[in-house]
Amino acid sequence: MREDAKTPARHAQRMARKQAIMQARIAAAQKEQGLLLVLTGPGKGKSSSGFGMAARALGHGMKVGVVQFIKGRIPTGEAAFFSNLPGVTYHIMGEGYTWDTQDRERDVAMATAAWEQAAAMLRDPRYDLVLLDELNIALRYDYLDHDQVYDDLLQRPPMQHVVVTGRYAPQPLIELADTVTEMKVVKHAFADQGVKAQKGIEL
Amino acid sequence: MREDAKTPARHAQRMARKQAIMQARIAAAQKEQGLLLVLTGPGKGKSSSGFGMAARALGHGMKVGVVQFIKGRIPTGEAAFFSNLPGVTYHIMGEGYTWDTQDRERDVAMATAAWEQAAAMLRDPRYDLVLLDELNIALRYDYLDHDQVYDDLLQRPPMQHVVVTGRYAPQPLIELADTVTEMKVVKHAFADQGVKAQKGIEL
Repeated sequence: MREDAKTPARHAQRMARKQAIMQARIAAAQKEQGLLLVLTGPGKGKSSSGFGMAARALGHGMKVGVVQFIKGRIPTGEAAFFSNLPGVTYHIMGEGYTWDTQDRERDVAMATAAWEQAAAMLRDPRYDLVLLDELNIALRYDYLDHDQVYDDLLQRPPMQHVVVTGRYAPQPLIELADTVTEMKVVKHAFADQGVKAQKGIEL
Repeated sequence: MREDAKTPARHAQRMARKQAIMQARIAAAQKEQGLLLVLTGPGKGKSSSGFGMAARALGHGMKVGVVQFIKGRIPTGEAAFFSNLPGVTYHIMGEGYTWDTQDRERDVAMATAAWEQAAAMLRDPRYDLVLLDELNIALRYDYLDHDQVYDDLLQRPPMQHVVVTGRYAPQPLIELADTVTEMKVVKHAFADQGVKAQKGIEL
């Protein structure tokens, strides 16, 4: 059971706070503000979209933080590219979850340690954009305390953008978000035909 | 009327050729091969996903070509970031289409000149990945000869990846593609509320 479902009062309180923030934002109309973007769904392009937004932000001279909550295989291309760029702070969570070995305690510990890195960025107004890659997977399996995550997101500096990627974005996160895009698979010609992931495109 | 609809024989020929390529690819199973990816639909994240894939490819030491078929406003962040990186060749099409002034001849000329840059990359096996950003818009308005575009894509070097972005991907392009993702808008809180595009996230 999800943390958020366990605490309806806390959820209501968070939604009220969110509504107040939304109303202030709408009243501010033409003002700039930090956005929370969620990229979810089964289609390809969620993480790459997040990294593209990070690149765009860097192009504007903005400071970017990345925390990669990995699914299993170690991401290579984006880490190689972004992790040594000036203006980027980059954390990769441990060594992936224990899908095979099923050591839940270890998975929770790893995800929690990664969230501590994320939370530090979400408290630091020097970060203009924070990319939380595959966070949704950590939430999906309740490796993180949902309420803590949502509260940290809500309490971030007002001008800070956050991009969250991963399948299965939980409903409370969608409610908190400003913009949500779902990636749909229209066609994936080789998904069932044994063609391996292509370096540079998929890894 | 689309070029492709005008020439059913050519379309059938192209599909037969595509089918032969597909069969060879499937037979090759675990072999690597150049993929054609299409990112379309109304949701946010199409171009940024293409640029994220470009970043990932650069992270693998691959050579990347970008042609930006712009919609109107001049893209800034990604051009600033990518255009001077080693390993990247970057072309931006003219000054945007004449949506207001409706000078179709000029739009066709601009798009055609941009396609010539793209076609040169699609003939050059040194490019590991070619990003054709917002190409779908140029096709949508028939600013380009569809058959020429599809033929140039099909005849590219076998290991070359191509990423095409933009709303309204035409059906023949979807048929040619290996992977197609449609970005759906689940939520866009401020789309109708006068909040301006956010530097670093949207421009």
